[in-house]
Amino acid sequence: MAEALLAKPVVILNAPQLAHNIGAVARVMANFGLETLRLVNPRDGWPQEQAWASASGADWPLDGANVFENVGDAVADLQLVFATTARPRELQMPVITPRQAASELTQGLGQGLSVGLLFGGERAGLETADIALCQAVVTIPIDPKFRSLNLAQAVAITAYELRLLELDAPPPAFREGPAPADGAAMMGLFQHLEGELETAGFFHPPEKTPSMVQNLRTALSRARFSDQEVRTLRGVVTALSRGRGRVLEKIARQKAEKAGEA
Amino acid sequence: MAEALLAKPVVILNAPQLAHNIGAVARVMANFGLETLRLVNPRDGWPQEQAWASASGADWPLDGANVFENVGDAVADLQLVFATTARPRELQMPVITPRQAASELTQGLGQGLSVGLLFGGERAGLETADIALCQAVVTIPIDPKFRSLNLAQAVAITAYELRLLELDAPPPAFREGPAPADGAAMMGLFQHLEGELETAGFFHPPEKTPSMVQNLRTALSRARFSDQEVRTLRGVVTALSRGRGRVLEKIARQKAEKAGEA
Repeated sequence: MAEALLAKPVVILNAPQLAHNIGAVARVMANFGLETLRLVNPRDGWPQEQAWASASGADWPLDGANVFENVGDAVADLQLVFATTARPRELQMPVITPRQAASELTQGLGQGLSVGLLFGGERAGLETADIALCQAVVTIPIDPKFRSLNLAQAVAITAYELRLLELDAPPPAFREGPAPADGAAMMGLFQHLEGELETAGFFHPPEKTPSMVQNLRTALSRARFSDQEVRTLRGVVTALSRGRGRVLEKIARQKAEKAGEA
Repeated sequence: MAEALLAKPVVILNAPQLAHNIGAVARVMANFGLETLRLVNPRDGWPQEQAWASASGADWPLDGANVFENVGDAVADLQLVFATTARPRELQMPVITPRQAASELTQGLGQGLSVGLLFGGERAGLETADIALCQAVVTIPIDPKFRSLNLAQAVAITAYELRLLELDAPPPAFREGPAPADGAAMMGLFQHLEGELETAGFFHPPEKTPSMVQNLRTALSRARFSDQEVRTLRGVVTALSRGRGRVLEKIARQKAEKAGEA
């Protein structure tokens, strides 16, 4: 084969029927960082404009796609290939999950192997003769009540699992952006709020004040407010307790003045 | 809401543009055992024949799909909603992986909560104002070199993770404390607070109102307040805005009366 080194798993589509599905596969390959696409006997020939039109700009897997006459040729240079099916077959072949497949393929890559994923066409799926050229069957755990999984979706699931391992699955930090405010800032917010609530007669009856304070603090602590948010909320407390008061004060003054005039 | 019990996560599509994508979403929902679809302002109206044509027989999510005017209405009966985006936003909201999301939503279901996943439309994705009504952002770990993820693929990834956990059938987790309030209760709190802040002149300058509202909602959404806590906080808002007002009103009246006497 011309390809010197395959740093990532190859995606092989056996007898794909619809060009827009091939395009959709290219798109999802690009989403998850896969690059090499192989087509075995695309029904309507190759290249097909509609594939590029459906790839939303993910042209490179299509531009570089090689066409093969049969699965045997398409996997000829690969050392580890898994066949993806929605439906388990009567075949003496290990059946693994997409997650296990991703793990094994990633390990294989790490050992310098050339690896691939084989997908069947829209209608027929994979023949047992084709599966027999692979080292395991990957079964996507779909609901047996509705097995008709779109080709690009099947590629997406396995490519997603591969991507997670490529990233070494570092989950994003709990929060992007500023850190939560410290205890002193939160205490400042609490005391400001509670002081205003005290003035407003919120804590009633008085003996319930400690538990009411505690419940409020508990609810607000859970939000993990940032410093900026604490400042905003203190502004909220001030606005509510002073602003509204000013409005009512004005109304009361006007009323009193009118009463005085009458 | 009419729906008595939501045994599985609801899929909410905000402003979907293409009927065939809505159909593709229904198909992948059926693949992974999801049932309830909600549409917020589908661009071309609803129902649309093309959606059914693209669902490959997965008619039931489409047949049962309800249409909503805005995200707030669509999440009104849900207690835990995650917003799915390909691109992290500048928003103070926890960012989690699809796997973490599936785990939290499955736990929520086990605790009897109504839960959902919110997805943005094809072009615009989600507005920060919509994300502000959710409790976390789910980011699919796609390659930053090609972020254009198809809507149905985004649903597929998260639905697949949910399906894996459903098959694992984890024992219902013990819930600490009462359930989170639903979207309607939270919206009631937001609008009450914002109304009082508006009266108090908090939103200044006026053109900043939307971003100020959004930041407040985001911070408060994260806390996952219970119904009781929502009631308490509405009491806080009332006390701050009225209670203090009453005190000042009284003082103002006394002053005015004294001035009248003098």
